Amino acid sequence: MNVPDSKIILQTAQRISQYIHQTPVMTCENLNIIAKASLFFKCENFQKVGAFKFRGACNAVFSLSDKEAKHGVATHSSGNHAAALTLAAKMRGISAYIVMPKTAPAVKKEAVAGYGAKITFCEPTLQSRESTLEEVVKETGAVFIHPYNDYRIIAGQATAGLELLEEIPELDIAMTPVGGGGLLSGTALSFSYFSPSTRVIAAEPEGANDAFRSLQAGKIIPSENPKTIADGLLTSLGDKTFPIIQKHVKQIVTVSDEATIAAMRYIWERMKIVVEPSAVIPLGAVLEKKIDLSGKRIGIILSGGNVDLSNLPWIR
Amino acid sequence: MNVPDSKIILQTAQRISQYIHQTPVMTCENLNIIAKASLFFKCENFQKVGAFKFRGACNAVFSLSDKEAKHGVATHSSGNHAAALTLAAKMRGISAYIVMPKTAPAVKKEAVAGYGAKITFCEPTLQSRESTLEEVVKETGAVFIHPYNDYRIIAGQATAGLELLEEIPELDIAMTPVGGGGLLSGTALSFSYFSPSTRVIAAEPEGANDAFRSLQAGKIIPSENPKTIADGLLTSLGDKTFPIIQKHVKQIVTVSDEATIAAMRYIWERMKIVVEPSAVIPLGAVLEKKIDLSGKRIGIILSGGNVDLSNLPWIR
Repeated sequence: MNVPDSKIILQTAQRISQYIHQTPVMTCENLNIIAKASLFFKCENFQKVGAFKFRGACNAVFSLSDKEAKHGVATHSSGNHAAALTLAAKMRGISAYIVMPKTAPAVKKEAVAGYGAKITFCEPTLQSRESTLEEVVKETGAVFIHPYNDYRIIAGQATAGLELLEEIPELDIAMTPVGGGGLLSGTALSFSYFSPSTRVIAAEPEGANDAFRSLQAGKIIPSENPKTIADGLLTSLGDKTFPIIQKHVKQIVTVSDEATIAAMRYIWERMKIVVEPSAVIPLGAVLEKKIDLSGKRIGIILSGGNVDLSNLPWIR
Repeated sequence: MNVPDSKIILQTAQRISQYIHQTPVMTCENLNIIAKASLFFKCENFQKVGAFKFRGACNAVFSLSDKEAKHGVATHSSGNHAAALTLAAKMRGISAYIVMPKTAPAVKKEAVAGYGAKITFCEPTLQSRESTLEEVVKETGAVFIHPYNDYRIIAGQATAGLELLEEIPELDIAMTPVGGGGLLSGTALSFSYFSPSTRVIAAEPEGANDAFRSLQAGKIIPSENPKTIADGLLTSLGDKTFPIIQKHVKQIVTVSDEATIAAMRYIWERMKIVVEPSAVIPLGAVLEKKIDLSGKRIGIILSGGNVDLSNLPWIR
């Protein structure tokens, strides 16, 4: 399989349209005044399972032939991808096997179990995670669906940007957060095909700036001991996401956790929507004035809204 | 002035349409499964100043003749009506004078001041509030706009229900919270004129059940020492709101604070939107199964989303 072309992305949008939410685009007058720009927020916090991840998972699951799908799908994740893959599998009527570190927060374990996953717990190491997944796949015959380093996933995530540019034309800039690069590479593809004059810029936590460093170095620099409140952005780029990002993404800016928390609280208070720390990193970059914005039309993908409401960063 | 008729409500909708947000209607599959009903949430938390109150305030301000408006508007309120009236006045280019108890939370003082109000502080008693307001009106020549006991306010609040029934036809039930009765009486009027087969039901906190008791007694029973987390619903009915409610509202159900907090958290977690305790009382009634819902189509007006994010009821 190759990098998804424009036809593949349109086919993907078609394939998943009956399963996903076409999420709304919201604006906030006060934020526009502060930013001296026009900001358009694509609200993937309203997506099923509360995150854009459902788009990619859905595409991966419904791309499988009946024969491939028969024994279910598997992945390692404790977060949004696990929930997304489980729900997509449920919709197709197949099993989802999730490998999760036994140290994952109870709230995440319950969420994934609540969607009907068959969970296998592993030690909280990369090695244990991979060997446990291998065993699960061998035993069950399930198809492994990587959280981001998979062209079906990338094509699925690309549909968020596609919807955004169809609804809000002539964007000067499109911004997403970057962790493993699934959303960013998909967004970059959609804009390069369907709105090539739009610059795609990513935002990354200062304490997990491996994508920033990778782009500078011209090769993947793995994430090491990342430390940030944006717990969805701890992973490293993959060999499928990185080349796309290298080719199509103009800039990656880094953002402090303080700016992230401020942006999150601002969105909750003024826009009255619940978004997770990982989702607001691009707005953090805007508020920290990391890029020249004045007078620009900027699309921002708010990636998700899954937050432990008993543990908010401004209440300590 | 008389009780607003259907023509007045349509004129009101026209008058304020360029100033207000036409708020979206949201749904939640999980909630529908739990409630065994179809719930349609009219999201007035997305209204300007974060509450439906802006509709009434806007109508009152823009109903004034230039001569009446010249010296501004005045009210007593520490909450959403104060912010709403101030913003509406600002849009018309006139002054807003707000009388507020000096004991009001700093966050509310700042919010109202932030919209540009001229604030006069009073003692936290009904008597001081009224005498201070009287002085302010005498000194400034401003027009007093009551928070709810005013037909212009009632007609303005009626437009939320009007939009809801236009977007979602054939509702079996429409629900709102009730405090002073502005939203409830307006909603009752809209449905009685434009969707008379819809039953209008109000929900009220158990600890502030004066409207429930008033409806039973057939006369206004004032609110005395109300105690509830729904701090927008502490006021008594007025002589303009009560007769409308008496005539058009079938039922008022009371809801415990526990159910209110659970409903609030559920909406934040699942629907990813920020709503205030007063807004979720109707959902609390649904979750407590206070009315027969099964298979019904139920419209619920989520009245507002102004919450102190540093002081959430599930974090103690």
